[in-house]
Amino acid sequence: MAHDIATDETTRLIASDKVEGTAVYNAMGERLGSVYNFMVNKRSGEVEYAVLQFGGILGFGSDYYPLPWNALNYDSGQGGYVVDLDRATLESGPHYGTEDEPVHDLEYGRQVYSHYGLSYPY
Amino acid sequence: MAHDIATDETTRLIASDKVEGTAVYNAMGERLGSVYNFMVNKRSGEVEYAVLQFGGILGFGSDYYPLPWNALNYDSGQGGYVVDLDRATLESGPHYGTEDEPVHDLEYGRQVYSHYGLSYPY
Repeated sequence: MAHDIATDETTRLIASDKVEGTAVYNAMGERLGSVYNFMVNKRSGEVEYAVLQFGGILGFGSDYYPLPWNALNYDSGQGGYVVDLDRATLESGPHYGTEDEPVHDLEYGRQVYSHYGLSYPY
Repeated sequence: MAHDIATDETTRLIASDKVEGTAVYNAMGERLGSVYNFMVNKRSGEVEYAVLQFGGILGFGSDYYPLPWNALNYDSGQGGYVVDLDRATLESGPHYGTEDEPVHDLEYGRQVYSHYGLSYPY
């Protein structure tokens, strides 16, 4: 079973450029959008949140929705991340336009985590 | 000084797609290469290492050199990361071809950190 161990251990880590663009589904299997990018703490190297591109039609009019990293679970069956969120919760969450960039300060991080019922550990 | 605080806090975080492609210099200001991507622990969200594309001529024949995340320090003056490593240390470090992909298991992580004199904290 050496092969299985190797496989498990490989999947401990994921390459940054494989996260970007990966599809995101909700628990009912509906495709919500895809990961645009994710925000990393420069010093500690911790990923604070992944940014979901969501909404609009065929990608036009979509916005960026930061989600706590822990809210995303990779499902190899679906080949994407699954988040246990309904559309209404997501739509009312923090988001910004594709031409905008919020100040990613501690207050913003707290807002993101708090909207999804998580305490902000940073 | 509210502005300075905002600036500092914004720069706490960096977007994944801004890390990729960023130039990497050594302490003498020589350009070693650029960040190809970086490896994230899926569960914990911790970045274990950044992968430097280094060597070859004009990008041909270069290889991928994983470096502990903490070994990279962003220098806004140079607009890139600085690593305090000489070429010989880098050349003798773990690396793989652009068509290859190592098994990113715990043993590999330990090799990477150990080559650069760091204990592997994962």
